[in-house]
Amino acid sequence: MEFSSKLLENAVNEMSQLPGIGKRTALRLVLHLLKRPEEQTQKLSSSLLKMRETINFCTNCHNISDSQLCEICANPRRDSQIVCVVEDIRDVMAIENTSQYRGHYHVLGGKISPMDGVGPSDLNITSLVEKVKDGKINEIIFALSSTMEGDTTNFYIYRQIENFNVVTTTIARGISVGDELEYADEVTLGRSILHRIPFETSLKS
Amino acid sequence: MEFSSKLLENAVNEMSQLPGIGKRTALRLVLHLLKRPEEQTQKLSSSLLKMRETINFCTNCHNISDSQLCEICANPRRDSQIVCVVEDIRDVMAIENTSQYRGHYHVLGGKISPMDGVGPSDLNITSLVEKVKDGKINEIIFALSSTMEGDTTNFYIYRQIENFNVVTTTIARGISVGDELEYADEVTLGRSILHRIPFETSLKS
Repeated sequence: MEFSSKLLENAVNEMSQLPGIGKRTALRLVLHLLKRPEEQTQKLSSSLLKMRETINFCTNCHNISDSQLCEICANPRRDSQIVCVVEDIRDVMAIENTSQYRGHYHVLGGKISPMDGVGPSDLNITSLVEKVKDGKINEIIFALSSTMEGDTTNFYIYRQIENFNVVTTTIARGISVGDELEYADEVTLGRSILHRIPFETSLKS
Repeated sequence: MEFSSKLLENAVNEMSQLPGIGKRTALRLVLHLLKRPEEQTQKLSSSLLKMRETINFCTNCHNISDSQLCEICANPRRDSQIVCVVEDIRDVMAIENTSQYRGHYHVLGGKISPMDGVGPSDLNITSLVEKVKDGKINEIIFALSSTMEGDTTNFYIYRQIENFNVVTTTIARGISVGDELEYADEVTLGRSILHRIPFETSLKS
């Protein structure tokens, strides 16, 4: 792509570094900013910069937070003895949206993925194991993606804590609400039969 | 969407002002920046800001340029008497990519669209008409979108310059290269028969 301006080219190049944004989309976004008041670009730039430079991570659960402890960890009405292990903060937001969970979280910051060069030491696993060793946790809920990487990460953590006095559970896998059986893959369907629950239990939620 | 951090929320809100970027995508982009070195966010912010604050438009054709005249207008080997009228600089880039055109451009900055509140006075039409009045142009090529708005804009400009000594042409509408006839819409197909060209001409390009 040939640009008539170096400034434009730089902006497009930087924008296209973002995931899922190609050169054409980047150009569209940048030209949009050019058409809008200068103020909008200033706000965008400064909000990104301020966030990147001053953002904080909760010292307890590694969730993004403006204070030392995030709102969830600082909330005395939440059960600190149940910890839900998730990949990133989007998962925290997704689970919080369900209003079904009143425990704490532990954000790993990813999952073990040798293909992407992510090993156990790149994730917040040590601090989780420490918490378990200190006997502060009764139950660990694994809520990672149902993929090879997610399962590997679950198992890696499980092996480190299995000898301590902690219950480990994993979120239920099964047919999504609203799904038709004939379109479900056989692994999911098979597991959903294997891990069936009493009908009375299903009526309660 | 509930955010655990005000800084994060601000960044996501600003990002989601961009066209085609919803809150979820904005969150993904912003979290990506958080995972990358701080330098990347700094580069992105400064390149956007610098572009927005110091960008220049060519005084002749309104194309984006780093100098007063864009490279195309400043090039003595290009024919300044032929002017191709386009909506925005993306169209200039698209036509330049074909290497088929050696004239100048005139960037309108949009098209007449009452639905979006864009009238003739919002576009760079006056300067084009002035150039025609001064007798500097032999041919005007309309290369706007083949839509109601594009046609309206073409016609609006045409009415202002029809009494001057200038040839007005429009880019050919027809079946795209590689298209199968049975899938072409009837208006396009009809026009492509109406505006058929000598077979020998088609062999040359």
